[in-house]
Amino acid sequence: MRHVAAFPKSLCVVGFMVGQTGLGSNVNVRLYSAMPSRRVVFVLFDSFAALDVIGPADVFAEANRLATGTPPYGLRFVSDQTQVRASSGALFGTEPLDQVSPEKTEMLMVPGADEEPLRAALANAGLRDWVRAAASSAQRVCSVCSGAFILADLGLIKGKRATTHWRGLQLLRRWPGAPIVDQDALYTEDGNLWTSAGVTAGIDMALAMVERDLGRAAALKIARELVLFLVRPGGQSQFSAPLNLQARSAATDLSRLPFWLESRLTEPTTVEDMANAMGMSVRTFHRRCLAVFDQTPLQVLLTVRLERVRTLLEERSIPLKTIAARTGFSDAGLRRAFSDRFGVSPSDYRKCFG
Amino acid sequence: MRHVAAFPKSLCVVGFMVGQTGLGSNVNVRLYSAMPSRRVVFVLFDSFAALDVIGPADVFAEANRLATGTPPYGLRFVSDQTQVRASSGALFGTEPLDQVSPEKTEMLMVPGADEEPLRAALANAGLRDWVRAAASSAQRVCSVCSGAFILADLGLIKGKRATTHWRGLQLLRRWPGAPIVDQDALYTEDGNLWTSAGVTAGIDMALAMVERDLGRAAALKIARELVLFLVRPGGQSQFSAPLNLQARSAATDLSRLPFWLESRLTEPTTVEDMANAMGMSVRTFHRRCLAVFDQTPLQVLLTVRLERVRTLLEERSIPLKTIAARTGFSDAGLRRAFSDRFGVSPSDYRKCFG
Repeated sequence: MRHVAAFPKSLCVVGFMVGQTGLGSNVNVRLYSAMPSRRVVFVLFDSFAALDVIGPADVFAEANRLATGTPPYGLRFVSDQTQVRASSGALFGTEPLDQVSPEKTEMLMVPGADEEPLRAALANAGLRDWVRAAASSAQRVCSVCSGAFILADLGLIKGKRATTHWRGLQLLRRWPGAPIVDQDALYTEDGNLWTSAGVTAGIDMALAMVERDLGRAAALKIARELVLFLVRPGGQSQFSAPLNLQARSAATDLSRLPFWLESRLTEPTTVEDMANAMGMSVRTFHRRCLAVFDQTPLQVLLTVRLERVRTLLEERSIPLKTIAARTGFSDAGLRRAFSDRFGVSPSDYRKCFG
Repeated sequence: MRHVAAFPKSLCVVGFMVGQTGLGSNVNVRLYSAMPSRRVVFVLFDSFAALDVIGPADVFAEANRLATGTPPYGLRFVSDQTQVRASSGALFGTEPLDQVSPEKTEMLMVPGADEEPLRAALANAGLRDWVRAAASSAQRVCSVCSGAFILADLGLIKGKRATTHWRGLQLLRRWPGAPIVDQDALYTEDGNLWTSAGVTAGIDMALAMVERDLGRAAALKIARELVLFLVRPGGQSQFSAPLNLQARSAATDLSRLPFWLESRLTEPTTVEDMANAMGMSVRTFHRRCLAVFDQTPLQVLLTVRLERVRTLLEERSIPLKTIAARTGFSDAGLRRAFSDRFGVSPSDYRKCFG
């Protein structure tokens, strides 16, 4: 299960030296000695998202492969059965919960799922008890994606900073036992609680844990082996459609607002203009905006304009200057507003999504 | 196994509309109607790399989840047993090869592994026969990471463009039945052959297939759901230590060359200087460089300098100007040479690895 030799080491005609990161480094030196082995337990349930589990698991397994001596992470996969099917249909063999003592869990990893299987997991008393017991003694309590709802529902993260898939941010904020939601983070760490944004952000989180445990050189090495960025530029905002202004306002007195703003992006628009168009006093309009959108009128306006910028950036051929002109920004103003909102520059965004 | 409702759709207090990508889009419209379902078969074997499989599988599963009507991809997992253990220890239930007819495979997916399990897979006659039969009728024959060696060894990709994990590039070039190796690609497509670089590059490749099958809007939507970049800037060069000059020259007459070049990075160095230092004529030195490094003397010099640049960029605090000064480049010269080699600018490299 653990392979000491890296793949092409002895196959390779010209030879390859493990641990070599560049000409300045010592060659033939492994990057780190392992810490004492930590028991990492992934809690699976019917229709879980397999990538939420296998992403972090393979990061830890790679850390094991590159370590000298004891592997730093001992991986276990448990469920309330002996096998469990992921949402993709992949079938996983697991250790039954009742045969694994939760107290020995040092890192508890809870993956996410779609709504229906997540509700089923939340209704599973045996699974809840096991997770609660494991969480009470674990050095790290971790969730990937919508797995945060399981931790929240068990009251394990109240008042702590946490995140989840961008689709679930609003909901997590309103969930009983809710954490303080960090809506832009790819992952968060607050005391012994680690949570990640959607799906592949679990890989970024696992890499950050390895960096904490074994150092930056080890994390960089693992990132290279798995062909990962060590750090992804920008937060999860850039992946999301965080607004959903139309959805939010659908059945309210502000249903026309997003469309009206969309239709006049290049014109200067004041809060008075917006209130007039909605047939409300400025005071009422301001109050309704906060109630419907969780945003002030000017924030709503900015959101509409930035969403249009984002859509236009995804068309590869439109120059930034043209995008600014079509959305009522100056060139510099667009760059600043976009970077503030999404954590990356417009040109970096285009490189990843354009 | 297939979930029509996106996770927070009905849970969410404010509602969420599937298919909404921005205010400019139509709301409540799913992004695509599905094509007829394609049978995708992942061929597993002992100690395969689970992320090579689950990364692409979850991309296809997400495409199924978002589609109307028939799911576009029918996922199957086969091995020569009923279960198989991945390198991380995760146990997968599989359909036995002898119960699945290879001819019905429309997309054949072969994952990678470390050297030892890969050699075992190559020695497995039943597995070889099944893969060969499936490949002969499949519309797409695909490998992730070192899975390319299985296809190469079966003579399935001779003369075609392909890639593999950066560690295996040199070896693949020399393998019997070798493809034309593209050393910088995250993935390649040549006719019905798709190959990807190491591990997570399989996710990039699967996303490109979905873009081909279902369009760019669908791929962008799936990328967002899985919190992936649609396109990662730069090729796989930026993840690798492609040089290994020290390893290559270890037991040769040029063993001192990399160290000697390292020691005088800021000095102007000619081919004559290098030949003199190695005690050879220019003509002999040039010939030996090509034989040992596959590079001309000036390419070796550039490689040494760029590897130092890369290492210094990974130290977050050193200004680019200082790095240029320490490696004998002008500021502009460093930017140009670095971008040419790695496909990203020095500052973008630092954002991802610094």
